[in-house]
Amino acid sequence: MSQPIKTRTTVDIYGKKYTIVGNESSQHTRQVAKMVDDKMHEIHEANSYLDTTRLAVLTTVNTVNDYLKLEHKYEELLKKIEEKED
Amino acid sequence: MSQPIKTRTTVDIYGKKYTIVGNESSQHTRQVAKMVDDKMHEIHEANSYLDTTRLAVLTTVNTVNDYLKLEHKYEELLKKIEEKED
Repeated sequence: MSQPIKTRTTVDIYGKKYTIVGNESSQHTRQVAKMVDDKMHEIHEANSYLDTTRLAVLTTVNTVNDYLKLEHKYEELLKKIEEKED
Repeated sequence: MSQPIKTRTTVDIYGKKYTIVGNESSQHTRQVAKMVDDKMHEIHEANSYLDTTRLAVLTTVNTVNDYLKLEHKYEELLKKIEEKED
């Protein structure tokens, strides 16, 4: 079986270069990188005393939190559909 | 108007302590912190040469990617419901 084509995309996040290897298009990877960079700058604005590691970790905390909220909304929507179908 | 009650929760992520202030319960914050810690260790397994900042940034990239995928699924589900209602 052939392997799925992997893309290699070099992006700049908060002043450092990262080469991201994955199945997504380079355009998608650049969009994700831009979102992470924006989030880090946003968190830095409110917490300028944080070093970059702590800033990056808190950005992850924030993102996981957003993910869980969306997951909750998704599950609620699924439940609503199931109730309608009953 | 009264302010919403803020919780302060101190958590340990990848060997450092963080005090997270927010509207979520301490239990929720600890769950999020545990997920971030797990993800960072998981990414470290496959990329042991990365320093902690890079590791945290890549963890965020990963999470934003998961978020966008879920958002896409959520929108598809909404569209399906709207089509049914028409």
